[in-house]
Amino acid sequence: MVGTVPDVMRAAYIDSVGPADRIRHGELPVPPVGPTDVLVRVAAVAANPVDTFVRSGAYATPLPFPFVVGRDLVGEVAVAGSGAAGFAPGQRVWCNSLGHAGRQGSFAEYATVAAERLCTAPPGIADDDLVAAVHPAASAWLALFRHGRLRAGETVYVGGGAGNVGGAAVALASRAGARVVATAREEDADGLLALGAAEVLDYRAPDLAPRLRRAAPDGYDVHLDTSGHGVLADAVDLLAHGGRLVAMVGLGRGAAELPLGPLYTRDASIVGFAISNATTTDLAEAADGVTGVLRDTPWRPRIAARLPLSQTAEAHRRLEAGGVRGRLVLTTGAAAGR
Amino acid sequence: MVGTVPDVMRAAYIDSVGPADRIRHGELPVPPVGPTDVLVRVAAVAANPVDTFVRSGAYATPLPFPFVVGRDLVGEVAVAGSGAAGFAPGQRVWCNSLGHAGRQGSFAEYATVAAERLCTAPPGIADDDLVAAVHPAASAWLALFRHGRLRAGETVYVGGGAGNVGGAAVALASRAGARVVATAREEDADGLLALGAAEVLDYRAPDLAPRLRRAAPDGYDVHLDTSGHGVLADAVDLLAHGGRLVAMVGLGRGAAELPLGPLYTRDASIVGFAISNATTTDLAEAADGVTGVLRDTPWRPRIAARLPLSQTAEAHRRLEAGGVRGRLVLTTGAAAGR
Repeated sequence: MVGTVPDVMRAAYIDSVGPADRIRHGELPVPPVGPTDVLVRVAAVAANPVDTFVRSGAYATPLPFPFVVGRDLVGEVAVAGSGAAGFAPGQRVWCNSLGHAGRQGSFAEYATVAAERLCTAPPGIADDDLVAAVHPAASAWLALFRHGRLRAGETVYVGGGAGNVGGAAVALASRAGARVVATAREEDADGLLALGAAEVLDYRAPDLAPRLRRAAPDGYDVHLDTSGHGVLADAVDLLAHGGRLVAMVGLGRGAAELPLGPLYTRDASIVGFAISNATTTDLAEAADGVTGVLRDTPWRPRIAARLPLSQTAEAHRRLEAGGVRGRLVLTTGAAAGR
Repeated sequence: MVGTVPDVMRAAYIDSVGPADRIRHGELPVPPVGPTDVLVRVAAVAANPVDTFVRSGAYATPLPFPFVVGRDLVGEVAVAGSGAAGFAPGQRVWCNSLGHAGRQGSFAEYATVAAERLCTAPPGIADDDLVAAVHPAASAWLALFRHGRLRAGETVYVGGGAGNVGGAAVALASRAGARVVATAREEDADGLLALGAAEVLDYRAPDLAPRLRRAAPDGYDVHLDTSGHGVLADAVDLLAHGGRLVAMVGLGRGAAELPLGPLYTRDASIVGFAISNATTTDLAEAADGVTGVLRDTPWRPRIAARLPLSQTAEAHRRLEAGGVRGRLVLTTGAAAGR
């Protein structure tokens, strides 16, 4: 759908940081489009836990008010700036890095996106699958390859394999020629084996550490716990010589016990990583991973619920209450899904 | 001195792992020389704490018995194998990677060294200074540049600046254009300022953490604690965005408290490193650092005592008793020092 652009749009926004009920759903001017920007007519967005941290003020980042919330979108190009090379009206696109560091968010009928942050959507993937995938798949890609430096033939541990980041990591690592050992609930094991995992262990097994040892006697080259339930000392003990433990969530509460001896004597490292810090170069590389995992593997993100954009405050409340298994996808009605 | 090579030599060796009194000082055959090896007539060696771990069996590594102990040597080429390109009899050389992983050690009148592990000695540096430097300067170089990826313009913390690794790190980092903040005893501060440190703080100051914060308000790009006295949680808190904490010794006893939140939200990492794992490529690069720090800076290693080779068991006992400040250098009498 290529059409005229109105002056105003519906948006979910805040005038100041605070609790979820600060989120208003109302009209804002359609944003201006600079020479290297693209104005996107938004079809669907996904609510991230990090969106709630930005909204509450817990994650301190520059916010222009009124501030449209949200990080991810799928939509189509409405207007391309004269220097936004490679983009033309009607083209289907996605972005996963709006809504922080001074950039307005995605939860609106229109969003201005810098061309270098905008990606072409792969064909044949529904809007809600795509928008639910772009954050977890990019996180998994950056964790495994940018920070974990995973290579073909290596062995990788993926904790929380049935989560969206975990599932994408299993599929991406397997596609890259790595041997994957994952943990999950027993009922999720078959799904992960279908994504290419060599072994799936029940994360509640009391003898999990020795089982993980048997599954990789030479240790894990990359350790990625997406669940936050892992024990750091066990994780370090299971690392291979030169292994990389990628830390992208806190493990348990507060500080964890780190045994430095087993870490340094095997040249192992712990690599911290938050996707909010990713550069546009990192994100562009990760975009190939997002496209690839959707194109080349059976992995699809788990979607917990679909809501209209007007229910954004409710979506934040659900995320903050905890227990949401999968992505919350919101639709604008501004562009038709495919 | 270029001369004939005898059939037997004096050596400090063990027939099995165990306590320091297992070390014998007696005659062994001069070792054979393969086509890409060099037979070195050893002038001086240095006793490393790691030598005691190899001797005791605490550090498990393949050892051919009778096993000559020791890792470092300075001497001159006696015989160069036909494929040991670049080496000729009489040339002054050093090595810092013998005595583990199946290789015989350095504590003998002669030692066979693979050409790729042998380095040309810089002119004008006395044997005991050179042999005392090769392990700590290579460790400092690998920690800062190979594992810490330190670049010009960055800020580095060096804990334990007055130790041999610490002093070499201060000199090497400063020579590389980094800003150096070090800790040491008050009486050692002037020496570290002369090596290029921007600030030297008393490591016993009760308000050390806030002082370190004031000395680098944007945080430390590389954190290198050579002392083992640091507090890991404070160290992580003081890291810059993207900072690298290089762990080459245990901090305190047992496991340390690691706050994962401050680590991952700033894309920081903890990089473990033990010089025993260094590849020949790593060691060859580090050799340029060893030569450079001796040639370009006033840094010289601290030597705690000089002993004859026959006192090797005594040297191990002193290292195991603790409190040795500086290097123990042993001389063979086989080649004249310069």
